[in-house]
Order: sequence, then C-alpha cells, then structure tokens
Amino acid sequence: MKSIKIKVPATVANLVCGFDILGMAINEPYDEMEVRLLETPDIIVRHTDGFNLPEEASKNVAGIVLMKMQEHLHLKNGFEVIIHKHIKPGSGLGSSAASAAGAAFAANILIGNILSREETIHFAMFGEELASGVRHADNIAPCIYGGITLVKSSDPIDIISLNTPGLFIAAVHPQVEVKTSDARQILKKNIQLKDAITQWGNIAGLIAGIEKNDLFLIGRSLNDVIVEPVRSILIPEFDTIKRKSLEMGALGGGISGSGPSVFMLTEKKKTAGDIAMMMKSVYDQININSMVYVSDINSTGIIIEEQNN
Amino acid sequence: MKSIKIKVPATVANLVCGFDILGMAINEPYDEMEVRLLETPDIIVRHTDGFNLPEEASKNVAGIVLMKMQEHLHLKNGFEVIIHKHIKPGSGLGSSAASAAGAAFAANILIGNILSREETIHFAMFGEELASGVRHADNIAPCIYGGITLVKSSDPIDIISLNTPGLFIAAVHPQVEVKTSDARQILKKNIQLKDAITQWGNIAGLIAGIEKNDLFLIGRSLNDVIVEPVRSILIPEFDTIKRKSLEMGALGGGISGSGPSVFMLTEKKKTAGDIAMMMKSVYDQININSMVYVSDINSTGIIIEEQNN
Repeated sequence: MKSIKIKVPATVANLVCGFDILGMAINEPYDEMEVRLLETPDIIVRHTDGFNLPEEASKNVAGIVLMKMQEHLHLKNGFEVIIHKHIKPGSGLGSSAASAAGAAFAANILIGNILSREETIHFAMFGEELASGVRHADNIAPCIYGGITLVKSSDPIDIISLNTPGLFIAAVHPQVEVKTSDARQILKKNIQLKDAITQWGNIAGLIAGIEKNDLFLIGRSLNDVIVEPVRSILIPEFDTIKRKSLEMGALGGGISGSGPSVFMLTEKKKTAGDIAMMMKSVYDQININSMVYVSDINSTGIIIEEQNN
Repeated sequence: MKSIKIKVPATVANLVCGFDILGMAINEPYDEMEVRLLETPDIIVRHTDGFNLPEEASKNVAGIVLMKMQEHLHLKNGFEVIIHKHIKPGSGLGSSAASAAGAAFAANILIGNILSREETIHFAMFGEELASGVRHADNIAPCIYGGITLVKSSDPIDIISLNTPGLFIAAVHPQVEVKTSDARQILKKNIQLKDAITQWGNIAGLIAGIEKNDLFLIGRSLNDVIVEPVRSILIPEFDTIKRKSLEMGALGGGISGSGPSVFMLTEKKKTAGDIAMMMKSVYDQININSMVYVSDINSTGIIIEEQNN
C-alpha cells in the first residue's frame, strides 16, 4: 500500500508581542513520521522515541487526527504511523503540533491530496485539542505553511503567510515543567488599554518589519508588555538569559509558546551559536539540564522525504 | 525675504483597529499655507478662512509651532503665516495637525532644511498639544510622510512609513460636535485580554494587507472591537452608515480620528462616490448638515507649490 515519510519542523508560537496570533517554523529540531495507508480500517500508532507517549490511537495526538479524518471523510482505509520524535514533548517548541500536523498532512497525501491547507489545519487541531484542551493553530499553521504565519482567526481558519526574514534562532529548553494550563491560568483576564496600545504598536512594527525585511525594526518591535512579564516568572533565569542575549547582539526574543523554552532571534548564525552556549552555561550553573538548538527559519513547512505509491 | 506656499493634506487617524498607532493622508480636503521668513522676530498668523480660529501666535496651532522653533533653534528671524484652511476644525480629519505640520514643514524649508522629519514632527506636536492637550503624532506623521504611517512610539519619535495601497476614501463630516477630550474620556481604562488579542490579530492582518497590497485582507482586518463600539455612540447614524457602506462594497471603515467624521475605504472610485452620496442623504434625512469627501490616499505628504528665495 501507499506510504510516505515526512520531515516535520518544530515551531515557536506567540513570537513575543504576537501572543496567540503569530508562529514561526524552525529547522531544528524536527520530527520524522512514516505513514502508511492500510487496507483495514485500523489506526496504528508507534513511537520509536523514548518519550513514553501513549500509543493508543484515541489518546495519541497523531492517532486522534487520523481517527477524525477517517470518520469525517468516511474513509474505508486505516493508517499506520511510526513517529520518530525529536521535538521533546512539553518543550514549548510545538511537539504536539508536529505530530498533529504531520499526521493530517501525510494522511491527506495518501488519500489523494483532497484537502486544502485550511482543511488540513482543521483536522490537525483535533490533536492540539487532545494535547492542551484548546483548538488552536498557533503552531500547526507555521508547521504546515513554513515561515512565519499569522493566525488571524482559527474559527473560521484564516491564516496569512508572512515573509521569511533571513534570521537565525537560538533556543534553549530547560528541563523544567511548565504546564500549558498553568501558563494560561496565570494570565490576567483584564489588561490596561494603554498596555494594549503599546502591544499592538509593537505587533504592527513587527509585521511591518517582517514584510519589509527590516531587521532593526523587527528587533525594536520584539517587546511584550503583557504576557512575558507574567509568564517569565515560571521560567528560571529568564531575565538573565534575555539580558545576556541582547548584550550579545540578539535582535530580541522571549518565551517559545507557553514555555519553558526560550528563543532569541539573531542576524548572524555565529551570534545564535554563542547565545546558545551562554544559555546552556546559565542552566548548567544552577544544575538544570537543558537542550539548546541553533537553527534558521524553516521556510518550507512539512516536506516529503520519501513516497511510495 | 524667502517665502513658500505649501499644500497640506487632511489625515485620518486611528484607522479602525489601529487606535493610537495608524494614520493615513488623503488628498481631499487639504489646506494651503503661505509662510514667509521675516527680518524681525515677529510671529504673525492670519487666517483667510471663516473658522474664527485665534490669530494670536501663542493661541494658534501654527503660531505656537513657529514660536517653539524660534525659541529652541535660537532663530533671529520671525515668520508670517497665512492659512487658507479647508479642513474644518473639529472634523476629525486632522485640521490642527495640518496647521501644525504645515508650519513646522514650511519653517524648516525657510531656515535651510536643517531638521530631520522626526525633528519636524517633534515641533509640530507642540501644535497638537495646544489643540487637544496631548502630544501625539497620529495625524502629523501621515501629514508629513504621506501614505499610511505607523507611529510606533511618539517619545522617542519612531515612525514607520507603510506601503500605499491604491484605495479610495469616502468620508462624511456630520456637523455635530465631538470633543476629543470627551471621546477620550468615554474609553474604558481596562479591556479584556481576549478582546485585545482579537484587536491585535486584526492590526497584524491590516499591516500585512497594506504591505502585501492585499485588498481583501485589508477589508477583513478592518474591525475594531475596542474603541469603535464605545465611541460610535457619539456619532449619529454611525451604524446605519457603516452597514450601508459595507452593503455597497466598502472594504471597511470607521471613525476618523476621534470623530465625528466617518470614513470608508473602497477599491473603486465610483463606489466611494456612491457611498459619499448615501452618507449625505442619511444625514439630510435627520436634518444634520454634512460635508462629504471622495479622495484617494495621498502618497506625498505636504508638497511645495511655490517657493521664492
């Protein structure tokens, strides 16, 4: 039967001032997934990684997406999916989105590429719902589209693909747990209008900077006066890492998704590499294990590595 | 002595979801100003219009700008300014900004073009401060730069000039008074985070649409869930005019500045003309006098019509 092997990028949601609307795909880390169309209606999920994720289809992020596609599209076939996960679950780097988007993307190819990108996102969001309780496309959209995406609305799905500036990313994942639900509950339900105006001035500057490829404008727009001051207290040494990164030449950065990963954008790859080393050493000094990544922006989204018909 | 005659465009501040950050210059209406460098240190202001604005320099928007320039730049010369005002004061179409920006722009040329655009804006803001009590650049920036501008910050002045989409504007100025101070006081100091997120998603979409020249994206981003629902109650028949405009094909629109003028953006000039007629008839029916304007976006900002050295 038909099978496909895909490479699925990690993603950074929220992008500092772009809380709940902006996301970015990055080349490192990434998952690989092999998906095969089955003659039988079974949905089989296997993980080759050691993350202990549930393999029962209805409890697995990729599995639930395939089940929903099978049900809503009245498919007679089933799917077998083998997930080689490298994006650590709970890192804030879009691990669940990668599984969900990868499953929807691959299954769509196997059934004849009948879905639009919006419909693919629609199905992938069932995976995010299972993972976090919220149907959101902040990570799924950039994972599928590549580059930087604006989720103007997730119901109806309205995604705008932005320009991809030639920037590099340093990211660190300290091995501490920040639950998405905690990160969401800690936010204030009401904010001051004057802070909101500052925020949307920064968002406007960030979008203009991205579209104009104006790195200096991107840098001076990467300020979040609403979410970061609250959420950063959940991340050890956030302020130290941010301050040092800016001193070392980062354009700006902040919390990836709802954390605990922290990312910084740089103009040069060497700067990103230096910052990643600094990030690691900050956590080493307080005996917190961490993973660091240096990457550029992924402009392609999910790509097909192998396909057998 | 040197003299200059300039044409100064009206401006639409706030641009629906872009409250306090976006502004747009339009070709109709506009003011004309003649400014002459004097041997003596006098600041002389004359209005040829019938708007009864104060001509005493320290109480006149243009006069105060010239006084501040004279003082801060240690000028020995004075200025005579003759203002042919067509942008009605209190219309919400940037009448005070035109006087202030025009005075600063013209005086700068007469003293040898020594100021940057940011410095010109710095001086023009003294005029806005006199007019409304607030040093803001929402109207001054597009008046000087032309097109659509983002005021990312007014202290320090950080203006980003955006792309100028080929759109038309229908605007109506109903002859009712909306004081800027009332329009500001009516706003809530605190807003819900979820509304702020909707707003900044729309702002992000609007900036992306402007930069990509994507008229459909501009249209579906022109929604203001925070300011318009509150301020529009100060403007008679606002909802009727907006609903009919959208039915007639407007991309979107809202309150110009703090009102009472209402503007709509359209793809075609004919649509703008039809909407302007509809706007007028709505106010005619309830016996409110109104002025209507059909224009395109002004891409040049203030221009020099005559110059004598």
